[in-house]
Amino acid sequence: MSGQTSSIICLLEMFFKKRGGKPNSVLLFLSFLVFMKSLHCVQSKKLLVLPMDGSHWISMKPVVEELGRKGHHVVIVIPEANLLLGSISHCKTKTYSVPYTKQDVAVLYRKNSNLIFTKEPFLKKMESFINRIKNISNFITLNSESLLYSKELLQYLKDEKFDAVFSDPLMPSGAILAEYLSVPSVLISRGIPCGLDVAVTQCPSPPSYIPRMFSKNTDLMTFSQRALNFIVSLAEPFICHLIFRSFNDIASNFFERSITFQELLSQASLWLMKYDFTFEFPRPLMPNMVLIGGINCVKKNPLPLELEIFANSSGEHGFLVFTLGSLVSEIPHEQLTHIVEAFRRIPQKVFWRYSGPMPQNLSENVKIMNWLPQNDLLGHPKVKAFITHGGIHGIFEGICNGVPLIMMPLFGDQPDNGVRMSHRGAGIVTDFYTLTAEKFLDAIDKVINIKSYKENMATLSKIHKDRPIEPLDLAVHWIEFVMEHKGAEHLRPAAHHLNWIQYQSLDILVPVIFIPLLITIMVLKCCL
Amino acid sequence: MSGQTSSIICLLEMFFKKRGGKPNSVLLFLSFLVFMKSLHCVQSKKLLVLPMDGSHWISMKPVVEELGRKGHHVVIVIPEANLLLGSISHCKTKTYSVPYTKQDVAVLYRKNSNLIFTKEPFLKKMESFINRIKNISNFITLNSESLLYSKELLQYLKDEKFDAVFSDPLMPSGAILAEYLSVPSVLISRGIPCGLDVAVTQCPSPPSYIPRMFSKNTDLMTFSQRALNFIVSLAEPFICHLIFRSFNDIASNFFERSITFQELLSQASLWLMKYDFTFEFPRPLMPNMVLIGGINCVKKNPLPLELEIFANSSGEHGFLVFTLGSLVSEIPHEQLTHIVEAFRRIPQKVFWRYSGPMPQNLSENVKIMNWLPQNDLLGHPKVKAFITHGGIHGIFEGICNGVPLIMMPLFGDQPDNGVRMSHRGAGIVTDFYTLTAEKFLDAIDKVINIKSYKENMATLSKIHKDRPIEPLDLAVHWIEFVMEHKGAEHLRPAAHHLNWIQYQSLDILVPVIFIPLLITIMVLKCCL
Repeated sequence: MSGQTSSIICLLEMFFKKRGGKPNSVLLFLSFLVFMKSLHCVQSKKLLVLPMDGSHWISMKPVVEELGRKGHHVVIVIPEANLLLGSISHCKTKTYSVPYTKQDVAVLYRKNSNLIFTKEPFLKKMESFINRIKNISNFITLNSESLLYSKELLQYLKDEKFDAVFSDPLMPSGAILAEYLSVPSVLISRGIPCGLDVAVTQCPSPPSYIPRMFSKNTDLMTFSQRALNFIVSLAEPFICHLIFRSFNDIASNFFERSITFQELLSQASLWLMKYDFTFEFPRPLMPNMVLIGGINCVKKNPLPLELEIFANSSGEHGFLVFTLGSLVSEIPHEQLTHIVEAFRRIPQKVFWRYSGPMPQNLSENVKIMNWLPQNDLLGHPKVKAFITHGGIHGIFEGICNGVPLIMMPLFGDQPDNGVRMSHRGAGIVTDFYTLTAEKFLDAIDKVINIKSYKENMATLSKIHKDRPIEPLDLAVHWIEFVMEHKGAEHLRPAAHHLNWIQYQSLDILVPVIFIPLLITIMVLKCCL
Repeated sequence: MSGQTSSIICLLEMFFKKRGGKPNSVLLFLSFLVFMKSLHCVQSKKLLVLPMDGSHWISMKPVVEELGRKGHHVVIVIPEANLLLGSISHCKTKTYSVPYTKQDVAVLYRKNSNLIFTKEPFLKKMESFINRIKNISNFITLNSESLLYSKELLQYLKDEKFDAVFSDPLMPSGAILAEYLSVPSVLISRGIPCGLDVAVTQCPSPPSYIPRMFSKNTDLMTFSQRALNFIVSLAEPFICHLIFRSFNDIASNFFERSITFQELLSQASLWLMKYDFTFEFPRPLMPNMVLIGGINCVKKNPLPLELEIFANSSGEHGFLVFTLGSLVSEIPHEQLTHIVEAFRRIPQKVFWRYSGPMPQNLSENVKIMNWLPQNDLLGHPKVKAFITHGGIHGIFEGICNGVPLIMMPLFGDQPDNGVRMSHRGAGIVTDFYTLTAEKFLDAIDKVINIKSYKENMATLSKIHKDRPIEPLDLAVHWIEFVMEHKGAEHLRPAAHHLNWIQYQSLDILVPVIFIPLLITIMVLKCCL
């Protein structure tokens, strides 16, 4: 049901209440008609959801919830031991046992977050990075195999006769089960580091103006930046192979035949991309890519009284919101001291999400909490800036609410996200590893007091919200479409039938260009 | 205002009428709220519309009308002598004098339509084709220059301070005036023959699976088809130069500096593309391309009584709708005889749009009319098939209503359109030039009696209509967006800053690949 129809129903409900619960017959019939209209396209379908734990679940959750609320039979399959997953309203949750505990997951996350902060020389840092990838990869393998070799669960999933699978591409069991159950799949992603999302959708991505992940380039590159970007684009297939080799193994072992993860992903009917062009640099898209950036910041709730009082006590100076994301539990002592020191010297109040040991000498203008209603705080009229690690969800909460950013990227896509927002003049990137109180204060001062940051962010926010349809409605529509039409075959490009040489027309170049050229040269040579 | 809100308002209106025009206060207030909600985003802006005469106006008209209805100040500028243009409700129309009459335009169209039907050897046919292009080009030049050198009108347009220009890319004065008035532009197009739309939007279009216009290829090509497609793609810039040379002249003369039509088009903020992927082969799109295929078949009206009676008299056999488009006034005698003969031998009734001299021996099951309510006829339950030249609007009316097609393509994009629909099994292409009664009867028989045509078209129709937002709402939204935000700069790819060599990374290839390769070979040679 669209937002518009639901607001009409709300209006009707409001009037019923105002009239003491005794609606007259015309109003009753009218509301019945509106309700029937809202339902008339909804034919209940069956959806299998295979989510990824952690922040990836944030964008998926409202979509799944809404599909359940609309009357679809939604089954979410999750490991018994997880951090953020769990049952949600209107949906059925099935769990499978895994050979690790919730504690193990927490330890893995903590270990990885510690690795992020470890100061090491470059080669050691690369080794740590590879170790981190290995840790996560082993964990995903364990998780996937626990699901895929649970005979009972597999039989149940077969018997359920789902209409579609909704999953995260980094959760290989999603694509594998879609193939196994012979049902179409919808994937949700911010983009895959080695450009795998672009490769499997056959989406053109010229390295001359589309910066590669981790390059920290913008879409306007110098010659040397373009050269590096070009080399990285050449290396992408090999990087993908390295990263996703274990996923190939999971799939090949399960199907007892050689099959790659890339082949499985390329079968996906639809990709929900967690960005739009207020954030991402403009680039070509394929017809089966649907942009749903900002899907995580639709719902607004009033602040709890305690927070509201603290926020309002900030007076004309306003307040800051500070978080380094759910992955970071502890901040190294050196940076922690600088941050505390900087906060002591500003007139603003600070809401700080932090679950590590309480820092010493914390000034009274700072409120530390395990969890923050981040989006609601960012929607408060007194908020001045958002200090963030630059995760995609936080960035979009900043955009939605028009709050300028101070970004301290740590890993993954965060440095690239930082480049995007600072390139638009909507925030400043500060290096976390060399942070001092002075540098931090300087960044806070600039973002709060130089008008352009707020203005640029307000413009982005206005553009972001001026859309013909809400991202949640769009995501729900396309999943319903895939369930209803058994895929989205009409959006699948014929490029899938070509190999790389054919796609690039290299096999045409030889007979059509080079051979005639060669003959001409030879004839000319003979004649001369 | 979205379709949903307007239908709610209709519901409310219906109830008011049923209650004898005396709504109670709650209902009145409710409808007021709904109305205010529908208006709350609408801030009146100024739009300059430069339409193209003929069928191109069909898709533009409902958009312009809706923008006027929503309260925007819409000024349509048209030549005094035209065929289909004219004032429309809620919009202001300004005319400019042209050195030709309406009669001249009609003669030009008729001459061109006669050229289509002339049986000639290939070279002569090519000459005729070039003549046709020349005729149209001269006509457009006359038209554009009449507008661009009307000082008074130009001053008026300057004084109006428009927020955007809405035009057809084949109407050069649109892009020229957008540049002259320094306002953003929105263009509406089905695609430009030499791929100019793709070139100016920087949209990738690999010739390996994207068939070139006039090639009659599908997206699955044999080696030789791919080779031809590749060669055509290489020739496209030259073809564009030939076709649009006169447009370059118009622009350069007007601005008194060298400027190409291509440069002007590449400034467009947004492109409304008159297709979707139930019709077009799936292909990459740029962020500023918005698909609005089927925009021409939203409104449905009941049939006039006379036509309703004729339609219903067709009994179980149903009826056919036949048109060769607005450009064709007369059909050559030979084909006319065959068509009349074929119609005599079928049990179906036929609605035939034809403005030529009444054919002899017409059987009683055929009703010839100057104009047909085509979309309403195609929505009638008794319609069996649609015989069409395969213009984009007719094809989408077929898709919207799920009516299988018998296509007799004549010129332009029609043969390619025919390939698209027959490739999907939703119709049959019949060659008009070699038409006989038998061939025609065979095509009619197949499309009516082989179930798959109707079924495939019904599937396409279902997919086409299962969309998150109506194409009219989408078009209106994006024009409002461009007016509100003074363009859509955030959708403009950085590729516009690169030349062809940079875009293709050819300048990188030399230092990054070839030089190291050369050095390696030389070192190896030296060592050996």
